[in-house]
Amino acid sequence: MTEQQIEIQLTAEKKQKPAFDSLEFGKNFTDHMFIMDYTKGQGWHDPRIVPYQPLTIDPASMVFHYGQTVFEGLKAYLTKEGEVLLFRPQKNMERLNRSNERLCIPQIDEELALSALKRLIQVDRDWVPNVEGTSLYIRPFIIATEPYLGVAPSKRYQFMIILSPVGAYYKEGINPVKIAVESEYVRAAIGGTGDAKTAGNYAGSLKAQELAEADGYSQVLWLDGKEHRYIEEVGSMNIFFKINGEVVTPVLNGSILQGVTRDSIIHLLKHWEIPVSEKKISIDEIYEAHKQGLLEEAFGTGTAAVISPIGELFWKDEKLSINGGKTGELSKKLYDTLTGIQLGTVEDPFGWTVKVKEENPHLVKNS
Amino acid sequence: MTEQQIEIQLTAEKKQKPAFDSLEFGKNFTDHMFIMDYTKGQGWHDPRIVPYQPLTIDPASMVFHYGQTVFEGLKAYLTKEGEVLLFRPQKNMERLNRSNERLCIPQIDEELALSALKRLIQVDRDWVPNVEGTSLYIRPFIIATEPYLGVAPSKRYQFMIILSPVGAYYKEGINPVKIAVESEYVRAAIGGTGDAKTAGNYAGSLKAQELAEADGYSQVLWLDGKEHRYIEEVGSMNIFFKINGEVVTPVLNGSILQGVTRDSIIHLLKHWEIPVSEKKISIDEIYEAHKQGLLEEAFGTGTAAVISPIGELFWKDEKLSINGGKTGELSKKLYDTLTGIQLGTVEDPFGWTVKVKEENPHLVKNS
Repeated sequence: MTEQQIEIQLTAEKKQKPAFDSLEFGKNFTDHMFIMDYTKGQGWHDPRIVPYQPLTIDPASMVFHYGQTVFEGLKAYLTKEGEVLLFRPQKNMERLNRSNERLCIPQIDEELALSALKRLIQVDRDWVPNVEGTSLYIRPFIIATEPYLGVAPSKRYQFMIILSPVGAYYKEGINPVKIAVESEYVRAAIGGTGDAKTAGNYAGSLKAQELAEADGYSQVLWLDGKEHRYIEEVGSMNIFFKINGEVVTPVLNGSILQGVTRDSIIHLLKHWEIPVSEKKISIDEIYEAHKQGLLEEAFGTGTAAVISPIGELFWKDEKLSINGGKTGELSKKLYDTLTGIQLGTVEDPFGWTVKVKEENPHLVKNS
Repeated sequence: MTEQQIEIQLTAEKKQKPAFDSLEFGKNFTDHMFIMDYTKGQGWHDPRIVPYQPLTIDPASMVFHYGQTVFEGLKAYLTKEGEVLLFRPQKNMERLNRSNERLCIPQIDEELALSALKRLIQVDRDWVPNVEGTSLYIRPFIIATEPYLGVAPSKRYQFMIILSPVGAYYKEGINPVKIAVESEYVRAAIGGTGDAKTAGNYAGSLKAQELAEADGYSQVLWLDGKEHRYIEEVGSMNIFFKINGEVVTPVLNGSILQGVTRDSIIHLLKHWEIPVSEKKISIDEIYEAHKQGLLEEAFGTGTAAVISPIGELFWKDEKLSINGGKTGELSKKLYDTLTGIQLGTVEDPFGWTVKVKEENPHLVKNS
């Protein structure tokens, strides 16, 4: 299948757009969506862009019962010159296929998925918001749709892409957040699904998140499922620490999500010749470093928030203040550089951004 | 809310029923379903029985992205006298609420849910199959329906019950199955969602299951997520071993599902004064017992299969044959007694079965 085979059915009635200066995260959706079906024996078929609409789906569909589903998250940015840029979208499609592998979902054609994504953005281009700090959040996802109650991989799937103009993920913006180290609940274990972007990982995280919020913390810091000692992720982000001039982040061990922002941060730090390493990091080490005054900065990284500085860690009844609860210099520099590259205002030495061409109106078939 | 408040809308056109002597598991669904909505601030509302129909649901609904969903599984049986019996249905509703608690889903009214279930079976009574070994499988489930991409508990849910006339879960029937001990993948970890009946646990299990099947095994035996040493479950069932006259099953530790069949087996064994204990059981202990000729029987227990004898365990390149690969005496006795109680042919000393009254046609409102 090629891009030319994507059928396009335009909406008869465009929605009223929300005010772009007061967007909430993930609550508004654009005029169109992409859908493609999978049927065992036939493969993926019928790629199409259609008006954003409810799904009509059997209540016995396996996604509701056995959670066979994967997703991705990335963003499109409007530059000052009016161009639309994507940030490393190939990485998301590669990860989607890695998640598919873990969840026994058939592989997608990454090139087609990327073409579909660009085509959809072309169609809904006037939904890419033009206010500072905003972007168009892109959610590709796959769900198992066979109506069957046996525990087995589904014989039918739908791959979809929906778009949502968003403001900042955290209302606090680049201001530091308070994080509680989670001592009871576990996000993922080695041998589980922690390195796949799949629904169950998030469902399982809600309880700890809810309890932390009740205590005044934004997110939890997840420790490993085996020893409850090694740092894994923070909320739904990867995590970095700056200790005595060196940056460290947990090494990918099979239960940690391989973040695109995480990878980009590591590249940037190396480019700047700032020492950075991926390794097993125990919470005790972090505690010790803090005690000795060597824990200079900490921050979460992810597509939604980009960089989220950590101003306080709560562990074993102790509040560890980091950098006086203020955003660190390196966190700020990384945030400015990465969002600058994403917005096309800072040089992109790695060729990370991908331009979404303006739509050629002759290509649009209103079927 | 009471049973009287359940609105009933009957189907205009009844489906053709499948042949009850060749039913597959979980592929056919009855004429009606139960639905109830939850809206934050309003609670659960609008309980109703409607024709079985596709859901109309936003593609941004949180269940598709963050897997906030729980389910139950139980069965209704048709007795020779033409009565319909449920088996310990209160236990399923209690467990549904325990799963809700873990998944941050609002509690349901267990009495109302049970009334709804009975009412639905009354309406679809002629779908309870009348062939030996068949039953009506009942699937209550809850999904998060708020269209929102933030990771947080949903503000909207749907609780549904669907019904499926089923034959035996395993084509092999009460014949023993071959099981591979899983050495790489993990079903659940302490602090995770293993003791909740939620979609993500099943999604994560598919890969190991697929690999085991490719090697000729029906299911995998799950070891614990921490040490990869202690026995947890078999496929989607609890597990029991009979060693030197004593029966043992893994103790509920937080990552093992609290099976209703498991609990019933323990009750029956105690009633028969057969020694039974719940404890931590290592795979090494089982291996040792087998080596010494003391591993007499092994079987899985669950609603779908009731009792599934294990004829062979594959571990570390060794095939451990159990009871010569044949169904053990105790496994058979437990199966016969439990299915006998469920079908009303064996005395029910515990008051486990619950009768579904015949429908009073005057109660049906066709709204």
